[in-house]
Amino acid sequence: MFELADYRNIIDQKLASCLGRSTPNHTVREIYNYSVLPSGKLFRPLLVGAIHHDLAANLGQESKLDSFVEGPVNLAVALELHHAYTLVHDDLPCMDDDDMRRGRPSTHKAFGQWQAVLVGDGLLNLSYQMLGQSESPHLKELLKLFAYATGPKGLIQGQVLDLSGEMSENWQNLIQTHQFKTARLIQLALVGGALCIDRDQIPNQLRVLKKLARLGSSLGVVFQLLDDLTEFCEEEVSQHEWQVNPWPRWPEKILPCLESELKKIQNVIAELELLSVKKVIDSYFLKTRESVSVGMPNIKKHLNGIGDLGPAMDLLQF
Amino acid sequence: MFELADYRNIIDQKLASCLGRSTPNHTVREIYNYSVLPSGKLFRPLLVGAIHHDLAANLGQESKLDSFVEGPVNLAVALELHHAYTLVHDDLPCMDDDDMRRGRPSTHKAFGQWQAVLVGDGLLNLSYQMLGQSESPHLKELLKLFAYATGPKGLIQGQVLDLSGEMSENWQNLIQTHQFKTARLIQLALVGGALCIDRDQIPNQLRVLKKLARLGSSLGVVFQLLDDLTEFCEEEVSQHEWQVNPWPRWPEKILPCLESELKKIQNVIAELELLSVKKVIDSYFLKTRESVSVGMPNIKKHLNGIGDLGPAMDLLQF
Repeated sequence: MFELADYRNIIDQKLASCLGRSTPNHTVREIYNYSVLPSGKLFRPLLVGAIHHDLAANLGQESKLDSFVEGPVNLAVALELHHAYTLVHDDLPCMDDDDMRRGRPSTHKAFGQWQAVLVGDGLLNLSYQMLGQSESPHLKELLKLFAYATGPKGLIQGQVLDLSGEMSENWQNLIQTHQFKTARLIQLALVGGALCIDRDQIPNQLRVLKKLARLGSSLGVVFQLLDDLTEFCEEEVSQHEWQVNPWPRWPEKILPCLESELKKIQNVIAELELLSVKKVIDSYFLKTRESVSVGMPNIKKHLNGIGDLGPAMDLLQF
Repeated sequence: MFELADYRNIIDQKLASCLGRSTPNHTVREIYNYSVLPSGKLFRPLLVGAIHHDLAANLGQESKLDSFVEGPVNLAVALELHHAYTLVHDDLPCMDDDDMRRGRPSTHKAFGQWQAVLVGDGLLNLSYQMLGQSESPHLKELLKLFAYATGPKGLIQGQVLDLSGEMSENWQNLIQTHQFKTARLIQLALVGGALCIDRDQIPNQLRVLKKLARLGSSLGVVFQLLDDLTEFCEEEVSQHEWQVNPWPRWPEKILPCLESELKKIQNVIAELELLSVKKVIDSYFLKTRESVSVGMPNIKKHLNGIGDLGPAMDLLQF
């Protein structure tokens, strides 16, 4: 059985020990720790554990938690460190200029701007250091995939489209931005987690890897659109949010898109029997349903023409 | 024969083709190109070519340029891209706040700050993408080394010590900062270049790798101290330079340090018969001797108590 709490504990322990061992004995260590811990949802790292568990289970392997700890946990940690660096840099005054992050001052607010730039760069390099410890039998492929997905044609380009304003120009740009900025790390979690198992052992491996990439893509888009929706759970919505949030702008496109992507997610999960991956997603969707349910009066007030959210919310409960 | 011009051409071609292929078809491509091309001295990439040539020659291998192009050139490009990212981030207003770089507006001056942050991040990721294409038989070791040398306990910590002002507190901190900030990439060029050859083929490989690491360390310190010296070739020296430059502050320590490190460099080169590496270093030292020679009246004016530069300058001519 894949127990979320067990995997969460192991990932948290590894994050803490990695930061303790791989940062210098210097006051800057506090900034590294502050930027990563306490950890957030750990959505990407948990997906690594889940896909590793599911594929190992499908191959009849025992003690999947043990083999996760021996290698793939380092990929999980790499993804979390990489995610953390993007947040630290995104919050900078010349980027999104966010003073707060996870209910605390953002890194540059707490410690200064050059500290945030350098600690972000440090976490980025550290993510590759951890990737090298994933014990993947396909390290070269994994490194290529990781750098491509996070690099100039991947995650970074999502940030470029966001900050340049192109993201908000039309629906197509919006989805492309979400693909780059949000889906790439989720795809890496799933495909990368699979590449921590000897490919030759997985039946139809190329087909499986492609389906996992598509699952990650759909998850990224859904993840981001739901995140955009929860902005309207609040009493007040900022002027900026009205300008960039897709819900008031393309209400007729969002619900069909959400439903279609959610169905794709369900199909891949059913087809590949990804019970642990389903557990991780369920846990995230449950929180979203709760937030949306509590915030529904505000959502209705702000977005009175968006149509019936029911079918999409039902799909979050698979 | 190791011909500097041949290797320079190949590295330049590969840099250009890598940027063309690995950046998106979008206006941001211009910023990537601007931040890397036209290339500078290519000191680190040329060292990769030189050490690869020397070790291959010592093993009696033919067509060393061909085998460089098949793999190690990608490590050379990775180091140049990584070096370029550090310059782009270093120049940011919240870091060194430099408006000019290589005689042109720095990236953030020419294109904006968020563009400089993101293009720097993009180049950083791209450097790992190229590392993955180095065809090293020791990719895992190389990745570990690369990420360690450039990460929180390596290059980044050099930048932290620099920006925090700790670098200028005492002589020991200064040398440590140069080790982190300048020597690490040079060590990577030498040791990484050696790791592109099957270790088992190199006699006494561990000893050789250690000596190369020490050579890189000495080169980094010499490189930086000479760079600091050339600041005084100018008619005017800024207030900031007087505060942080080690030449007016520790004149009694610099010359003995320079001489000792230069002797170590000569010894390793002679012992391991690194004729091509010597060529790359010679070419750099020649330029330094010329600058120092032309600027000597200003150096004498600014630093009248520094003692006789002759012995150190003679050592630059080995």
